[in-house]
Amino acid sequence: MTFRLIAFDADDTLWHNETMFQSVERQLAELLRDYHPEDWVRARLLATETKNLAQFGYGIKGFTLSMIETAIELTEGRIGGREIQQIIDWGRTMLMAPVQLLDGVRETVTRLSRSHRLMLLTKGDLFDQESKLARSGIGEFFAAVEIVSEKNAQTYATIMRRHAVAPDEFLMVGNSLRSDILPAIAAGGSAVHIPYVATWAHEHVDESTIHETFARLESIAELPDWLALQGQAAQVR
Amino acid sequence: MTFRLIAFDADDTLWHNETMFQSVERQLAELLRDYHPEDWVRARLLATETKNLAQFGYGIKGFTLSMIETAIELTEGRIGGREIQQIIDWGRTMLMAPVQLLDGVRETVTRLSRSHRLMLLTKGDLFDQESKLARSGIGEFFAAVEIVSEKNAQTYATIMRRHAVAPDEFLMVGNSLRSDILPAIAAGGSAVHIPYVATWAHEHVDESTIHETFARLESIAELPDWLALQGQAAQVR
Repeated sequence: MTFRLIAFDADDTLWHNETMFQSVERQLAELLRDYHPEDWVRARLLATETKNLAQFGYGIKGFTLSMIETAIELTEGRIGGREIQQIIDWGRTMLMAPVQLLDGVRETVTRLSRSHRLMLLTKGDLFDQESKLARSGIGEFFAAVEIVSEKNAQTYATIMRRHAVAPDEFLMVGNSLRSDILPAIAAGGSAVHIPYVATWAHEHVDESTIHETFARLESIAELPDWLALQGQAAQVR
Repeated sequence: MTFRLIAFDADDTLWHNETMFQSVERQLAELLRDYHPEDWVRARLLATETKNLAQFGYGIKGFTLSMIETAIELTEGRIGGREIQQIIDWGRTMLMAPVQLLDGVRETVTRLSRSHRLMLLTKGDLFDQESKLARSGIGEFFAAVEIVSEKNAQTYATIMRRHAVAPDEFLMVGNSLRSDILPAIAAGGSAVHIPYVATWAHEHVDESTIHETFARLESIAELPDWLALQGQAAQVR
């Protein structure tokens, strides 16, 4: 099988992201330690984020607003203006944080861009994701960039149509079973799962419920060899 | 001249937007009336928004965070959690507000979609703009939708290239001289300016400094006749 378009998720596939969110969550728990234990702060924050997704979508600005709401709720409104400014400043720091590529990303993307058409395909805040791509230093290797508000099977079908590739010519590479792997397969594409060290609870999928077939690699650095193997298999047939 | 692609700005061109922002600004001034006069609240809010644009980009979530920062600054941190929750609730209300089309939009877009390829081309928050388009009831008339983080000449050149139209085949219709008219012309396109009743201070342009040529209509309802006149002119030549 020859893939004519390889799409990469960005957050936690090309660069670190979830670890930064979790670090800020710990700071929020520390800020509220006189009111509630850390586990409860994190549970209420997740509940607020989940409630707000339909209005705020994904991204750091929505996360920041959800942190503020959680702090107000958990202190029954007693949180002070200075503490809320602190929370906004965490959000601003996240938005400006240096983009840290995962191991092997630069080499793999550089190499594959010579043999394949590469796409960056990410959900989240348009402004934030464009800014991260610009700061990543690897933008030039992607022939196309698609930033979408949600990644479901219909999103993948639309992307394939817009870029004129058949489903069996499309490969998705990402860390999220829920957003990258299962919907890409549902749209007829292929998928390679590369787990990240941390997963946002919202993206969690119970693997025992999955019947789809996809490859799983430990590192993006294994992708070129995996692709070469797919090519061999096609020649043998 | 025949336009092969007509792109429409969305906020304050197809549907009301700035008036909603200004209404919430008045509510913020009311909330802070014991601290500062309305003019000063609005001036500080604009300064905070402008400072935050580089990190937050355009949109309601960034506006909400800027309102919170302004309230904290102008009360020297004395603003309470309940008041801040009130500000977040205004933001949420804005995100869910019904989309109110401007007069003549539905008829004009319906009619022009039969003779031209139409695009919706807007800057702002991806999630919010997609949501508004979905709620607008006119999404079906647009062959393409482009949501971008900033509208400058390069943005327009990229859009023309991606959609395979020459600059002289591209017409931009919008209310903002700064975002819709001047950069579209700088990229070689044509532009029709349809002013809205209110303009965000950030988008203001001193018209005496403008030397570019563009048409100005009072209402989008005049657009089909204007287009017909352009066609006649081309035939006469």
